[in-house]
Amino acid sequence: MSNFVQDSVHGYIKLNESETRVVDTEVFQRLRRIEQLGLTSLVYPSANHTRFQHSLGVLHTAGRFADSLGVDKHVKQELRMAGLLHDIGHGPFSHASEKVAEKHGIHHEDLSCKKVDKLEDILDVSADRVKKIIRGELEIGKVVAGDIDADRMDYLQRDSHFTGVNYGNIDVDTIIRIAEIDSRRIVFDYKGVQALESLLTARLHMIKSVYFHETCRIAEKMLERALDEFCKQKSVENMMRLDDYEAHSQLKNYEDENGLYSRLAKRDLFKAALKKETQQIEQDKFEALSGKSEREIEEVIASKAGINERDVLVDIPTPKERERLDVRVKKDGEVRKLDEISSIASSVLETEKNLLDLGVYCPEDNVDKVKPAAKTFLNTL
Amino acid sequence: MSNFVQDSVHGYIKLNESETRVVDTEVFQRLRRIEQLGLTSLVYPSANHTRFQHSLGVLHTAGRFADSLGVDKHVKQELRMAGLLHDIGHGPFSHASEKVAEKHGIHHEDLSCKKVDKLEDILDVSADRVKKIIRGELEIGKVVAGDIDADRMDYLQRDSHFTGVNYGNIDVDTIIRIAEIDSRRIVFDYKGVQALESLLTARLHMIKSVYFHETCRIAEKMLERALDEFCKQKSVENMMRLDDYEAHSQLKNYEDENGLYSRLAKRDLFKAALKKETQQIEQDKFEALSGKSEREIEEVIASKAGINERDVLVDIPTPKERERLDVRVKKDGEVRKLDEISSIASSVLETEKNLLDLGVYCPEDNVDKVKPAAKTFLNTL
Amino acid sequence: MSNFVQDSVHGYIKLNESETRVVDTEVFQRLRRIEQLGLTSLVYPSANHTRFQHSLGVLHTAGRFADSLGVDKHVKQELRMAGLLHDIGHGPFSHASEKVAEKHGIHHEDLSCKKVDKLEDILDVSADRVKKIIRGELEIGKVVAGDIDADRMDYLQRDSHFTGVNYGNIDVDTIIRIAEIDSRRIVFDYKGVQALESLLTARLHMIKSVYFHETCRIAEKMLERALDEFCKQKSVENMMRLDDYEAHSQLKNYEDENGLYSRLAKRDLFKAALKKETQQIEQDKFEALSGKSEREIEEVIASKAGINERDVLVDIPTPKERERLDVRVKKDGEVRKLDEISSIASSVLETEKNLLDLGVYCPEDNVDKVKPAAKTFLNTL
Amino acid sequence: MSNFVQDSVHGYIKLNESETRVVDTEVFQRLRRIEQLGLTSLVYPSANHTRFQHSLGVLHTAGRFADSLGVDKHVKQELRMAGLLHDIGHGPFSHASEKVAEKHGIHHEDLSCKKVDKLEDILDVSADRVKKIIRGELEIGKVVAGDIDADRMDYLQRDSHFTGVNYGNIDVDTIIRIAEIDSRRIVFDYKGVQALESLLTARLHMIKSVYFHETCRIAEKMLERALDEFCKQKSVENMMRLDDYEAHSQLKNYEDENGLYSRLAKRDLFKAALKKETQQIEQDKFEALSGKSEREIEEVIASKAGINERDVLVDIPTPKERERLDVRVKKDGEVRKLDEISSIASSVLETEKNLLDLGVYCPEDNVDKVKPAAKTFLNTL
Repeated sequence: MSNFVQDSVHGYIKLNESETRVVDTEVFQRLRRIEQLGLTSLVYPSANHTRFQHSLGVLHTAGRFADSLGVDKHVKQELRMAGLLHDIGHGPFSHASEKVAEKHGIHHEDLSCKKVDKLEDILDVSADRVKKIIRGELEIGKVVAGDIDADRMDYLQRDSHFTGVNYGNIDVDTIIRIAEIDSRRIVFDYKGVQALESLLTARLHMIKSVYFHETCRIAEKMLERALDEFCKQKSVENMMRLDDYEAHSQLKNYEDENGLYSRLAKRDLFKAALKKETQQIEQDKFEALSGKSEREIEEVIASKAGINERDVLVDIPTPKERERLDVRVKKDGEVRKLDEISSIASSVLETEKNLLDLGVYCPEDNVDKVKPAAKTFLNTL
Repeated sequence: MSNFVQDSVHGYIKLNESETRVVDTEVFQRLRRIEQLGLTSLVYPSANHTRFQHSLGVLHTAGRFADSLGVDKHVKQELRMAGLLHDIGHGPFSHASEKVAEKHGIHHEDLSCKKVDKLEDILDVSADRVKKIIRGELEIGKVVAGDIDADRMDYLQRDSHFTGVNYGNIDVDTIIRIAEIDSRRIVFDYKGVQALESLLTARLHMIKSVYFHETCRIAEKMLERALDEFCKQKSVENMMRLDDYEAHSQLKNYEDENGLYSRLAKRDLFKAALKKETQQIEQDKFEALSGKSEREIEEVIASKAGINERDVLVDIPTPKERERLDVRVKKDGEVRKLDEISSIASSVLETEKNLLDLGVYCPEDNVDKVKPAAKTFLNTL
Repeated sequence: MSNFVQDSVHGYIKLNESETRVVDTEVFQRLRRIEQLGLTSLVYPSANHTRFQHSLGVLHTAGRFADSLGVDKHVKQELRMAGLLHDIGHGPFSHASEKVAEKHGIHHEDLSCKKVDKLEDILDVSADRVKKIIRGELEIGKVVAGDIDADRMDYLQRDSHFTGVNYGNIDVDTIIRIAEIDSRRIVFDYKGVQALESLLTARLHMIKSVYFHETCRIAEKMLERALDEFCKQKSVENMMRLDDYEAHSQLKNYEDENGLYSRLAKRDLFKAALKKETQQIEQDKFEALSGKSEREIEEVIASKAGINERDVLVDIPTPKERERLDVRVKKDGEVRKLDEISSIASSVLETEKNLLDLGVYCPEDNVDKVKPAAKTFLNTL
Repeated sequence: MSNFVQDSVHGYIKLNESETRVVDTEVFQRLRRIEQLGLTSLVYPSANHTRFQHSLGVLHTAGRFADSLGVDKHVKQELRMAGLLHDIGHGPFSHASEKVAEKHGIHHEDLSCKKVDKLEDILDVSADRVKKIIRGELEIGKVVAGDIDADRMDYLQRDSHFTGVNYGNIDVDTIIRIAEIDSRRIVFDYKGVQALESLLTARLHMIKSVYFHETCRIAEKMLERALDEFCKQKSVENMMRLDDYEAHSQLKNYEDENGLYSRLAKRDLFKAALKKETQQIEQDKFEALSGKSEREIEEVIASKAGINERDVLVDIPTPKERERLDVRVKKDGEVRKLDEISSIASSVLETEKNLLDLGVYCPEDNVDKVKPAAKTFLNTL
């Protein structure tokens, strides 16, 4: 017996019996209480959408993707299930807890995989295959976890629909339609290359407007620090078990020393005392910076500014090496990498290298003190 | 200095300085954690939108409405502020706590008004006027609280956008454009009467598909009972102070005797053992029913079924008397009530009389016992 | 080899080889030059959509409908082809020429059927079955030509998208999902009855706002008269062969005596000297009216007004008898007519009885003369 | 007395008295019969939108833009009027006739200006100022005719809405909101730079998917040739006076020698025998190509292929020199060119240099002959 769920992005999403059983577990229902974009709703107040919706959306999109590739029914089912479960290990507020956990060597994919194991009995596909897909160990798994995948297609559309920032309107129909299997690899027909290019530019615009929005970064940084403190008292494992609702109540009661979470709950945010584009920082300074921990830097700046070190937060970008896109395009019978033949793709890659700015944040009434201190610090590196 | 907030329904919403100050208070920020439709997201998983967004939307729509009426700047500002604040008194999960509080004689408008008083110092308009508008004591206040008002226009669009049920797509531009003041009353030009009619049918379809969706009713009923129990221990006032996040944590820990809230948190819902359309119940039976409390009826049915009375919930509709719509339409210079001249309006009114069904709900494995017991009970009334 | 066409309402529409061949014929390509709503773009300037698009949309929707019913592949193909071809017989400006032709006993369905015969060789289904579906002679044909059909679903969405009047936003996904075959008849599951009801109210709102918009009626009436004159000279058959582009050029050159078409081409429209709601006309007067031809009435009024009879146009509604809706709904295993169990459906039916007003139209500078003449005429009937 | 027109892109568009009078002229009503994208509807069948709608949309957007800049009422009115009239000189099928006329030294802006002169009496602003704006001679005129202007904002949204290709979804609200006047120049606040960047990428995607779509290019080329022949017989002036409807009828009757227009009317299109990306052609060959006329090249290829020269069409791109964008952005008080500070903007500019391919087109059954002939020709240049 199948089941239909109505979604404001995709319309009806059909679930089979096993998928329905998975959705009905407590561990999956928990995702209803984890917002997809953490505290982004402090900036875009309509963005209250959850990992629960997103997971259903990825299942749905993965299934359509699989249909277009013409894989067999069983593989399609593995991909749908992996789409459904790929985020089940997320901690509270999505990425903020993920970052904190990663510092302690805990990855949300691993937590997801542990939870998949516990659901093994009710899955209609192999738990091992699902885990391999989630971990990115299968070529076909790129349907769910690749550079052009169901995950990304769902979140761009969904984040766009819910934030109200319309840059995420991508052309999913075309992307899926031009996908095929060629020599056991996923390739896209060059005829629809604009659809791929437009996904890349859409994502770039969403990163700049939403994911790396200055105020969102500040809230995120405050939250990371609050969660970090919480972990010291309660353990990372305990934190990752919480949902947003429970985390809210516990963080509010626990009251970290500098009250960062209480500030967040009433949207009393730090301000940027300094912002500097990464590419404007000289190479040697950047290396000097990277040699220090954020806490060390905060201490130095706070001491220069003559304020409590708790009142300074720094945001040091770790520029990712330019990676090639793992997307293959077929043109006149020949298969090549997307960024080799698309100048749009290669310039998006280039631009993405330096999107994050270096930031120094503090309470509004300390800005006047922190600003010069931060500048001096940077100059004397 | 004004401030812009991006909303996925209305685009940019502009806030003036006083409005920004109000939004930045802790009491208003709390609305970020109260979902507009309570547990409706258990049925429509994209419906996680909040009273916070809705309140901004009502402010915005009230302002546009006021512009079209041509009221003076100060009155417009009162209407915007009342729109912003009209729901500030809401308890957790919106309507469920409202219903429980009302049984104890506490109305959310009164709570809103109390909170308005506390904000008096930062308002750029008279708190008294705002309260009068919220209480529906001013003719011009119908912009915010009438039969065709900013509140309703915002929630129909918003609930539609977020549930994905597209029946709420109303024609706000026309409705607002045809509104004018005539002899100190709000009237609408007959030329755009379809826009009014379509709002009425849109609302009717949303009621049937969303607000009175059977599964939503069951969840709502379970939640009401859980909150009711909670109030007995902790007081209504304490309950109304909570937001959804806090209520979730407290209800989960407090664990009501029959575990209704824990069930809700994992979406383990009661099922309908019996549904009966109100109009199919004979008049005398209906009166007999209305003479009893829900608890009494539950006891009788549970006892007949041989199960614990905690495992039966009844939903007895209280049919509202057919009211006239308080909407005036101007046709050929003459002002008349909308439902006098629009056959669509009058038939919508007629249909709305009996939308709620009588329902008897219980855990799935008790349905076989409760069904005959409930039928017998109804027959022997 | 299949073919994809991008449509702004449905996204990609897939055509098989036979369908592609049909679309590529000159007779089908002609539909690109016939606007779906005739002169409605004089009122809603974005409404330039064509019978060509609509026909593709009906094919697509009919296919989805067929899938949901679970009919066999061949029947599905017949329904798609009938959807594609159902309007191929349309004359210029869609309904205006249809009306004129009907007076001469020529129906566009018959013209469509004749054209279907000529395409027989390239069809992958039986031309006879396609014609039967178009003529409404098959129960399964209600997918294309019934009270809830692919034709109506496409045009409501399309007319809404292109006029910008958002009342036509119907819930096609649900309507199609709840359709099934029961004892060889199409029935809809009661669980989704709101989707049916909302289609009915959507259509009602579209009729009032668009199809029977006063200015559209006037333009339509002027065009009918111009086409009527044209036919007298050139024959109905010749007229029906034209597309909008050719009709425009011929009508402009031909120049009817009162220059009605030239007026239309520069949007110099008649005005309403009198409008009267049908239900406000006494029964006996209505019968007296129905006994006369429009031309006779025009002559009388023109003569009373002392102007040329060519400068008066009357629009006499022919109220349709209230018909039962031919839509079956299945509730608790029992099949009943939709308007028996849905109060919304029955009241929509009731309202639709009298949507058209009686109108008397003339050039703007004759209104003052025609108005009293028309009133007198009506009173002395 | 103002007037409201409903548009499917912008909702209500309000026209003042003078604007209404302009719209009601025969010369403006003619734009109802000129499709915005010429024969693009042969590829995207929903794209039947007209210059009429677009002109209203530019008026509306120019007005909003002017409001945001804070210019005075009279200047705003000039900008609205120029927006309304900027395309009034367009010939049939928009760009195809424009290209043909340009070869004869006739520019549609000049024709527009001539028509503006004739409307002088009914304008509420100076005809001279309107003409200067249309000709791009005023800095403030960049609101209507610049690199980020009302024209482009309207057509991107409109072409997207009507083709169904969703890449044109730009963020007009933000673009307009961040515009201001600084030292008598239009500048945009850097805070919203993503909105500008996203307009540039949106346009790039639309160019690739729609404006330079291969099949559209072929149809366009066929149409240009048919119009060119027509002009030889009837004069350019006569051609430019036609609308699409008249041009259709005349071209069909006139029957150019190779029947190109008749082919278009039944969508019997040439195919590409050869396509070559401009950047893959060696510089010297490109120069050799540019030295010849299209007709010369066609003759050579046709002769090599042994077919009639009328059956070959070549499409030789004329690569535009990379221009700087004329868009100013204000960041930290300093005004700079957009493409200096935005890597996205500069890479879009770079990509736009070589979007057009060299193409050789012929009837489908000649492709086998023309392909080798065209290759040989290119090689022996």
